Amino acid sequence: MSRPVDDVRRAVRVLLDEAGSPTRVAVAVSGGADSLALAAATAQLADRRGLTPRGLIVDHGLQHGSADVAEHAAKQLLGLGFDDVRVLAVDVTGPGGPEAAARRARYAALSAAAEGMPVLLGHTRDDQAETVLLGLGRGSGPRSIAGMRPLDPPWGRPLLDLPRATTAAACAELGLQPWQDPHNSDPAFARARLRHEVMPLLEEVLQGGVAGALARTAVQLREDAEALDLLAARVLARVLRDGGIEAAALSAEPAALRRRVLRRWLLDAGVRELTDAQLRSVDALVGDWRGQGGVWLTGGLVVSRAHGRLSVSG
Amino acid sequence: MSRPVDDVRRAVRVLLDEAGSPTRVAVAVSGGADSLALAAATAQLADRRGLTPRGLIVDHGLQHGSADVAEHAAKQLLGLGFDDVRVLAVDVTGPGGPEAAARRARYAALSAAAEGMPVLLGHTRDDQAETVLLGLGRGSGPRSIAGMRPLDPPWGRPLLDLPRATTAAACAELGLQPWQDPHNSDPAFARARLRHEVMPLLEEVLQGGVAGALARTAVQLREDAEALDLLAARVLARVLRDGGIEAAALSAEPAALRRRVLRRWLLDAGVRELTDAQLRSVDALVGDWRGQGGVWLTGGLVVSRAHGRLSVSG
Repeated sequence: MSRPVDDVRRAVRVLLDEAGSPTRVAVAVSGGADSLALAAATAQLADRRGLTPRGLIVDHGLQHGSADVAEHAAKQLLGLGFDDVRVLAVDVTGPGGPEAAARRARYAALSAAAEGMPVLLGHTRDDQAETVLLGLGRGSGPRSIAGMRPLDPPWGRPLLDLPRATTAAACAELGLQPWQDPHNSDPAFARARLRHEVMPLLEEVLQGGVAGALARTAVQLREDAEALDLLAARVLARVLRDGGIEAAALSAEPAALRRRVLRRWLLDAGVRELTDAQLRSVDALVGDWRGQGGVWLTGGLVVSRAHGRLSVSG
Repeated sequence: MSRPVDDVRRAVRVLLDEAGSPTRVAVAVSGGADSLALAAATAQLADRRGLTPRGLIVDHGLQHGSADVAEHAAKQLLGLGFDDVRVLAVDVTGPGGPEAAARRARYAALSAAAEGMPVLLGHTRDDQAETVLLGLGRGSGPRSIAGMRPLDPPWGRPLLDLPRATTAAACAELGLQPWQDPHNSDPAFARARLRHEVMPLLEEVLQGGVAGALARTAVQLREDAEALDLLAARVLARVLRDGGIEAAALSAEPAALRRRVLRRWLLDAGVRELTDAQLRSVDALVGDWRGQGGVWLTGGLVVSRAHGRLSVSG
């Protein structure tokens, strides 16, 4: 058995290698076990790798005493050897519920404060599993259930293969006292309920291994989606002529690939919103052509077929 | 609002059309609400479509009184107008737990008794959602979470888009008394616990729509998988020479597609078992070639690369 601290450090090292061994890196820290273990591992690696880490702490201002929590986390980072620690106070507003608004504000502040450095995030395999289950349950399609990427510049997620238990054990090993976010156990938040109610029940019913299974599936789905996206870009380059699509050339491709080609073409052409039903109607102009009329899209655009060619007009 | 009986009948009609309007069809009936509603709809359509349906009832012999349950279902089918009703007693043995063994025995008996006819099955959208969640939780990969196909000869599943509530309502409307399978609420069975504990909790936490979301995702994943399988077959035909693979020609393809090509090639070459790790090692001979040695597969076969060409030897 390797020690949890070593596991976390190894994971950070692998990701830094994959990110091209940057000399400057930011670490996003909430003060919870995941990000605290991540910060400790990064600090340990800093000297040997000639790395100057910057600690970034977001104060969402949503809970009473959040400034104190941020201040405490900042002190912990200084204690770990960080020279450059910044607390970012953000304003959580906007559409989509408190979780979505907080996430938007957090990522925007982190990205700005990182000034072009990679930003390491403490998401674990359990976060990944919850993300997949959330995406699945909300029907957001293969793209969203493919989960978070380990490397998605400027974001880096070195801990995606480690269970949450490892970061907690690493903090204990280092004598670090992590902060327990009360939102993480607040049943008003869907993710908290997934974590504390749904996942444990699923693990029990399916006799364990669920978080790992969800995370593995996410990797495979992401690879499938990336392959299809790449193939779609190639096909689009081949079937595009004067801004329109040569229907005959596209019709030989399988349906899921055709729809990706058409989606890309329409988004490039300025279409803002595209439902699955609209996309399937556009695809019918290629794969099920019976001389039908044009397809109306959101925003007044129409896709129609004439002389074997699809075009968009406004 | 359309009537549940009409919804079920419409779904059966659509599937029969897609199956090429067969004149003979078998219906698998457990006596539960799903298959009873399916049988009733098929009987209603029989005359108009010149269709002779055969009712097939599997007696798994696993529960006390199962022969009586089968006998009762047979009488219900005769009452619905079926002329040809057969009870199939099966022997549930073999590896993989009672659920897997029962499924194997059931499908084998149905397929044999159908004598080449399409066999309609009563799986609903809720069954589909449970299947996706089971596959996900067990980490069986994108192929298994893509769920059941509506048309997968000899099997036809006309009700995959309908919720279970519709079949129950259809039975009530027709005055049919469905049998309640005690296994469906037996907490020893993982699927029963998914149905009665996990799915309701997920629906509550995510505020509804989960079964529909899972079923929609299954459709999209299946279409993606089919597209990649088809593209892999095309690429394989292009890169195959004298039973080996031209590595340079394959290396231009994205990783997920390469692995599908290699998987198909190896299975065609007689490889019986192939883990994801083995497949990734074989793919490294193409996508990450550093002069490494061959990859051992289960059964003593080795894949190696020489002169830019991959070959299998035993």
